[in-house]
Amino acid sequence: MFLRIDKLPVELPASPEIDPIAAKHVQELLGGRFGEMSTLMNYTFQSFNMRGRDKIRPYYALISNIAAEEGGHIEIVSAAINSCLNGPRTGFVPADNSAESSLKDVLPAAFGGHYIAAAQTALPVDSRGMPWTGDYVFSSGNLILDLLHNFFLENGARTQKLRVYEMTTNPSARMMLGYLFVRGGVHALAYAKALESLTGVEMSKMLPIPNVANKMFPEALQFMEQGMHLKLYRFSPEDYRDAGTIWNGTPPAAYAEGVGGGGPLEFVDAPPSGGDLAHLAGIASSFAPNYAPEEIFEIATKLYQKAKG
Amino acid sequence: MFLRIDKLPVELPASPEIDPIAAKHVQELLGGRFGEMSTLMNYTFQSFNMRGRDKIRPYYALISNIAAEEGGHIEIVSAAINSCLNGPRTGFVPADNSAESSLKDVLPAAFGGHYIAAAQTALPVDSRGMPWTGDYVFSSGNLILDLLHNFFLENGARTQKLRVYEMTTNPSARMMLGYLFVRGGVHALAYAKALESLTGVEMSKMLPIPNVANKMFPEALQFMEQGMHLKLYRFSPEDYRDAGTIWNGTPPAAYAEGVGGGGPLEFVDAPPSGGDLAHLAGIASSFAPNYAPEEIFEIATKLYQKAKG
Amino acid sequence: MFLRIDKLPVELPASPEIDPIAAKHVQELLGGRFGEMSTLMNYTFQSFNMRGRDKIRPYYALISNIAAEEGGHIEIVSAAINSCLNGPRTGFVPADNSAESSLKDVLPAAFGGHYIAAAQTALPVDSRGMPWTGDYVFSSGNLILDLLHNFFLENGARTQKLRVYEMTTNPSARMMLGYLFVRGGVHALAYAKALESLTGVEMSKMLPIPNVANKMFPEALQFMEQGMHLKLYRFSPEDYRDAGTIWNGTPPAAYAEGVGGGGPLEFVDAPPSGGDLAHLAGIASSFAPNYAPEEIFEIATKLYQKAKG
Amino acid sequence: MFLRIDKLPVELPASPEIDPIAAKHVQELLGGRFGEMSTLMNYTFQSFNMRGRDKIRPYYALISNIAAEEGGHIEIVSAAINSCLNGPRTGFVPADNSAESSLKDVLPAAFGGHYIAAAQTALPVDSRGMPWTGDYVFSSGNLILDLLHNFFLENGARTQKLRVYEMTTNPSARMMLGYLFVRGGVHALAYAKALESLTGVEMSKMLPIPNVANKMFPEALQFMEQGMHLKLYRFSPEDYRDAGTIWNGTPPAAYAEGVGGGGPLEFVDAPPSGGDLAHLAGIASSFAPNYAPEEIFEIATKLYQKAKG
Amino acid sequence: MFLRIDKLPVELPASPEIDPIAAKHVQELLGGRFGEMSTLMNYTFQSFNMRGRDKIRPYYALISNIAAEEGGHIEIVSAAINSCLNGPRTGFVPADNSAESSLKDVLPAAFGGHYIAAAQTALPVDSRGMPWTGDYVFSSGNLILDLLHNFFLENGARTQKLRVYEMTTNPSARMMLGYLFVRGGVHALAYAKALESLTGVEMSKMLPIPNVANKMFPEALQFMEQGMHLKLYRFSPEDYRDAGTIWNGTPPAAYAEGVGGGGPLEFVDAPPSGGDLAHLAGIASSFAPNYAPEEIFEIATKLYQKAKG
Amino acid sequence: MFLRIDKLPVELPASPEIDPIAAKHVQELLGGRFGEMSTLMNYTFQSFNMRGRDKIRPYYALISNIAAEEGGHIEIVSAAINSCLNGPRTGFVPADNSAESSLKDVLPAAFGGHYIAAAQTALPVDSRGMPWTGDYVFSSGNLILDLLHNFFLENGARTQKLRVYEMTTNPSARMMLGYLFVRGGVHALAYAKALESLTGVEMSKMLPIPNVANKMFPEALQFMEQGMHLKLYRFSPEDYRDAGTIWNGTPPAAYAEGVGGGGPLEFVDAPPSGGDLAHLAGIASSFAPNYAPEEIFEIATKLYQKAKG
Repeated sequence: MFLRIDKLPVELPASPEIDPIAAKHVQELLGGRFGEMSTLMNYTFQSFNMRGRDKIRPYYALISNIAAEEGGHIEIVSAAINSCLNGPRTGFVPADNSAESSLKDVLPAAFGGHYIAAAQTALPVDSRGMPWTGDYVFSSGNLILDLLHNFFLENGARTQKLRVYEMTTNPSARMMLGYLFVRGGVHALAYAKALESLTGVEMSKMLPIPNVANKMFPEALQFMEQGMHLKLYRFSPEDYRDAGTIWNGTPPAAYAEGVGGGGPLEFVDAPPSGGDLAHLAGIASSFAPNYAPEEIFEIATKLYQKAKG
Repeated sequence: MFLRIDKLPVELPASPEIDPIAAKHVQELLGGRFGEMSTLMNYTFQSFNMRGRDKIRPYYALISNIAAEEGGHIEIVSAAINSCLNGPRTGFVPADNSAESSLKDVLPAAFGGHYIAAAQTALPVDSRGMPWTGDYVFSSGNLILDLLHNFFLENGARTQKLRVYEMTTNPSARMMLGYLFVRGGVHALAYAKALESLTGVEMSKMLPIPNVANKMFPEALQFMEQGMHLKLYRFSPEDYRDAGTIWNGTPPAAYAEGVGGGGPLEFVDAPPSGGDLAHLAGIASSFAPNYAPEEIFEIATKLYQKAKG
Repeated sequence: MFLRIDKLPVELPASPEIDPIAAKHVQELLGGRFGEMSTLMNYTFQSFNMRGRDKIRPYYALISNIAAEEGGHIEIVSAAINSCLNGPRTGFVPADNSAESSLKDVLPAAFGGHYIAAAQTALPVDSRGMPWTGDYVFSSGNLILDLLHNFFLENGARTQKLRVYEMTTNPSARMMLGYLFVRGGVHALAYAKALESLTGVEMSKMLPIPNVANKMFPEALQFMEQGMHLKLYRFSPEDYRDAGTIWNGTPPAAYAEGVGGGGPLEFVDAPPSGGDLAHLAGIASSFAPNYAPEEIFEIATKLYQKAKG
Repeated sequence: MFLRIDKLPVELPASPEIDPIAAKHVQELLGGRFGEMSTLMNYTFQSFNMRGRDKIRPYYALISNIAAEEGGHIEIVSAAINSCLNGPRTGFVPADNSAESSLKDVLPAAFGGHYIAAAQTALPVDSRGMPWTGDYVFSSGNLILDLLHNFFLENGARTQKLRVYEMTTNPSARMMLGYLFVRGGVHALAYAKALESLTGVEMSKMLPIPNVANKMFPEALQFMEQGMHLKLYRFSPEDYRDAGTIWNGTPPAAYAEGVGGGGPLEFVDAPPSGGDLAHLAGIASSFAPNYAPEEIFEIATKLYQKAKG
Repeated sequence: MFLRIDKLPVELPASPEIDPIAAKHVQELLGGRFGEMSTLMNYTFQSFNMRGRDKIRPYYALISNIAAEEGGHIEIVSAAINSCLNGPRTGFVPADNSAESSLKDVLPAAFGGHYIAAAQTALPVDSRGMPWTGDYVFSSGNLILDLLHNFFLENGARTQKLRVYEMTTNPSARMMLGYLFVRGGVHALAYAKALESLTGVEMSKMLPIPNVANKMFPEALQFMEQGMHLKLYRFSPEDYRDAGTIWNGTPPAAYAEGVGGGGPLEFVDAPPSGGDLAHLAGIASSFAPNYAPEEIFEIATKLYQKAKG
Repeated sequence: MFLRIDKLPVELPASPEIDPIAAKHVQELLGGRFGEMSTLMNYTFQSFNMRGRDKIRPYYALISNIAAEEGGHIEIVSAAINSCLNGPRTGFVPADNSAESSLKDVLPAAFGGHYIAAAQTALPVDSRGMPWTGDYVFSSGNLILDLLHNFFLENGARTQKLRVYEMTTNPSARMMLGYLFVRGGVHALAYAKALESLTGVEMSKMLPIPNVANKMFPEALQFMEQGMHLKLYRFSPEDYRDAGTIWNGTPPAAYAEGVGGGGPLEFVDAPPSGGDLAHLAGIASSFAPNYAPEEIFEIATKLYQKAKG
């Protein structure tokens, strides 16, 4: 079972402008083969399906716990897309809802689905608009192969994130990217360490792939300065403590270079404190959420009163 | 963010035999258009994307909280599939891993992916083997339309579950179905009540769709006798309490008929206590989890010792 | 069986310019999940598959007859796309067919398929260029669920059409949209009334979704002033008269508000008179229709003479 | 615009047994690349999109008119599937709707979608269960290429139909196949003649592909004996008469061999008289149409009375 | 089995600028339904699957040999895309690899996959970004139908190439197009001749489709002046000589018109001499190939030495 | 460019019976995500797209050369499928081509596409019948990431092949599998060695994945006894010699254990000698190749004579 906390992993800045092109590119990191839907669902299904689980608890706990963290990652990538598409809007303008075609200046190259299917918000699709698919899930049941897959997946995901970083200067998108450079780095190292424990092959020496350090990116550096690259959080009220038997010791030199200390790795017995979700203004020309939110608020108020009374 | 609890919503019995045909049918309820991947991701994205959230908190809380419950539903459907595919196996038989073709008697009509891609475990695909796709997510941003969609989705899902129930007598599959008849019924009623509050149209009078009562099915009746059809659980340490402003009062007569009382609806301030996950035996002929789990256990033991020392 | 009339439901104005971006957006309304291919094929298959038809004739007649009308709707959406892509062209210019690259100024964000696969004409794809798929068809055989689906589908389709209206000022696209706001409104109300007759739940009170009236849009208002929002046409030489037992009485106030009268609903015993199809000029640089049409005309002339002689 | 007639092209016999394997194979001929959805939509979009139409009327009329006939072909293929899945059932058995699992003996190799998504009826998918897709539509706008495509499509469709004939002895499926061998043969010859008129290349000499004559199949022979292989019907109240300038003269010897006469080709100024649709019994265990049809009949009766009163 | 030669069929000029829009359009000719992946894989599978091969050697040899040539065609289309995306770059600029977002000026309408998934290079997708699929392969096993398909496929491919030619003036793309107009013309004629030998129907009289001659295009004319439109090359050390029994004689007048001579057709006992592959510069901001190539060169040098020593 | 040799990598025995279930399973190894279409096209596109090629020749040569070998692998997997579907048939039986339904005993669980689309031969689809797709190609341009992908791909492919081995005892399928266990092992080791040279991480110590040695399988052991596990063949008349700088030295102990010697690795300057292709009998009931092959032979004979005369 899963619980939910009404927070983002970290707070994102508002996008200073409506930026549908950044939103389109970032979709790849949500619904693409290497997007967060893939990391979430790969680890989730691998944990559901693990054979011999009782005997291989540390691996089960590691994959299950990272799966839970990935839930927050689809949330923060979606939040970055929503920030790009919302821009500086703060309130609902009823007059937009008319024949005046307030959307007629939508960029021709924007992703149409953001405007037609969604109310200028995120969808589980990639940068082509093609949907995420369950065929992106690899759950072979062979522990070494699954871990090798996960190590590859994290590095493929990092490569695509680095490229999207190069393609946009949007501060909301970049803050999300900086955070995920760091957290994805933790996951890549965790899977490397798991493989090392099983095979003796020092996979962590291969990192970083590509060979550019996270500290090069200011948005990532700030999180490294908070030590986030050294911490694996436990995303459960009571379970998955065995993951700490894999996530411990000292990271490879290249991993922590230049941000002080360099260790040790820490298994934190709680999720991160998180940041606030952004408010997304209603948009009359998208008919979202339908009436002015205030009108719906009145209805909601009556509901409250009725429930209390 | 999301947390995870290492329990199933309810415990499932072991399948008395290896039953790949039941497993194939049940896949529809996991990765099909009306499967639990769809309910999970529809509500998750609708909650990520809700515009004007601060003004329409009860609806936000309701959808967000049900989304969290659906995480446990993909888990229990996967567990039912895994139970069907595992059958009565309890231990790893190393000798299966050979040229003797221990799988040569696989039923011709089994889903090949269960054997070739996965180690006889669940995948996010439907009963055709086609993957779940992000195009099944409807997140229009129009609150009434999204709620109407969700009401339709829950009823479509119920219809397909009823039909799969008719197609199998497997006790593990049927226990899962009975549980989800009840919980899906709660969700359908919750969305009906949300729509009623916004439009005055008494959607709950349309239930049940199809017009066969849950109490007809022994596996559902037992959960109704525990009052589960009246309870909306809160799946969060601290959040989403506003959902209780929608889930309250008395259910329609047809909804609770025949199982005593009939109300009132209750918003429970915690998740259900849950049941144990089944152990899935390693299978040498599927190379899962690779070595005998015992051998991996030795490695894991060394990890523990190293971590402690 | 089906017959065909060489007319559009209504005549569309020519697009004053070549407008590939409008054409791209409008594709969603043809080949998307909520496009007219979906309404056409959903109702068509539901009518093919209806069990117990003899006993539930009015519903059979209603769905069958609306299916027939939807054939004209894929035609008029296609015509709007073709108008956008044709622009003011009126004749074939043989010299375009050369190495001079008359298409080199195609907008980078145009849908490539309009130029490469088709001769600047419509395709059964959505605004991403992804094809319409048979998986968009819902034909459960449960009458209430199918009707609920259809009610949802019509409202989802309306929402997307409203958004495309906001995204373009193209007069050809907007005329098509205005017409379909009205006709889609008729279908939504018809399905609402069918559901009401079976369940007693007053679905029509939920309309319009989103809550903006058709009369707000001049292109729709003109058709309402002709009473088209009150009429269900019979699209058959002899059959489907039973649909009139559902389509009768007075519409809800919100439905007809502001355009005089407001009823009663009328079942018209013939299709609408329709409008002329636009002529699409041949385009040498698209090699369509190959030779200059005049040359093909000569061939055709000989055919006529031979056929007569 | 389109009209609809509540008849099948010809009446089909009931399937003597429930035959889901025949139904699965026949789906290829409905929703596969060479299925009737493809012929219908290819010709429909080609007619919507034809450039220079006024100058090339006979070709426009031919393609438009055949498109209209194909509407009846998706209907008859669906009817054959429905017949196979319905078998000898004639009435609704309420007791099937229970926990007794009346569907537990469904053949493991049946197409699950027939039972889970549909109420044992047809879907627009192929024999794999994969949906028909708009990418099967070829509408290049080049008249010769489109006609060449259509000629190829008809012959590919014939080849697949012949193979399905070899794979089943189901009388309902075979009657449908025999009819479509003949009508598809007419379409292949019509496109051959159109190409011949434009290029001088005698495409009709290539027929039949594969080189087995329709007369070899008793179910086809009966329709040839009625002269149906010589007739192109006009599927319109008033339009498309120009198609007769292409469909006339004498067919190639191989085309009509052995069934007497051999010509001349005839353009019939009306659709065929058609046959009755089969009644599909309600099925309680599929929850179709929900209540017993009789109960719905009562509701419908009240509707009639209310409409009249 | 297959061998490989490290040459392109002909050398392509460098694109004078980075031209992602041309690259996007050209993708249709690589991974679209009528792209070179389709010609390659259609003929490859038809040759793998041919029944009765020993008795129909010339057809087997023809299809097998053309399949081998198509391998070079996916290579040259990919090379044209790569040239468009590489532009005039000649060397790796390490400083691009930073937070300065060197890709922030990527055209909004560029295909995102070129930048995010690939390092500004070709992918087996079409101009929508949708992947090539095995469903584009037609391998019916009926020789006449397969040849008819191939004839249609080549003409469809030519039509799309002509349109892309109209859409770009990029010299690298146009050189590739000119070459493939000529080689595709050879293949279309070869399949026409094969069909003629089996059916007596003079398919070659239908060429060219569309009716614009290759000589109209300077980039094609140069290859015709080298006689390349008359030559079928043998792409095998020892095999497929039987193809020469089909490729011989004199081409139709329209085929060779205006470029001198006009025949005879020649079966050349070797592949063409080919041209050099372009060098693609490393791109730091795409992290390709990771380190500066020079650094990798050092590693490679050590490998050489170690291998020799 | 590519050349072709009319041989299989090794000869396969005929399947003693028509075995459509084995054929269906083996399709996964042809057209699935880990099938030979994927290895072929991944390495082919990576070689087309390599940036900085001149500086990293050994890696370019290695990937290019293995790509060429994979062409033979799609051929041998197709041959195994064709053998399973052909069974012991040796000649064309004209009488099968009739109304007697010679295919009526096709196994219900067979893949319908083998019978309807193809003439009982292979298609580029997976074991579900879903097509291979270009989205399976990973060509990031980052050399280390591409090599890591390839190492993962080869091991994933091996795992699936091992499982199919367990699922069938068909001697034709198993011979193919044994051969590919060995050749896939060579490729996995080659990519491991390439990664080791670039990163120092001893990837080859991770092999074999899963941890079952090839020598356990008699069909693989015979090829190991010929030393095939030690040989990388050069698949080019003149090129790719630099691959030998990577493929040299001594393999890891576990790799060659138990089959004598154990090295050294050898770069063979030619392709393997190969084996004969099987003859596939014509099948009248599949209309393949149309006429009896003998009749086509007569036509072919006339072609020969005409070509010579």
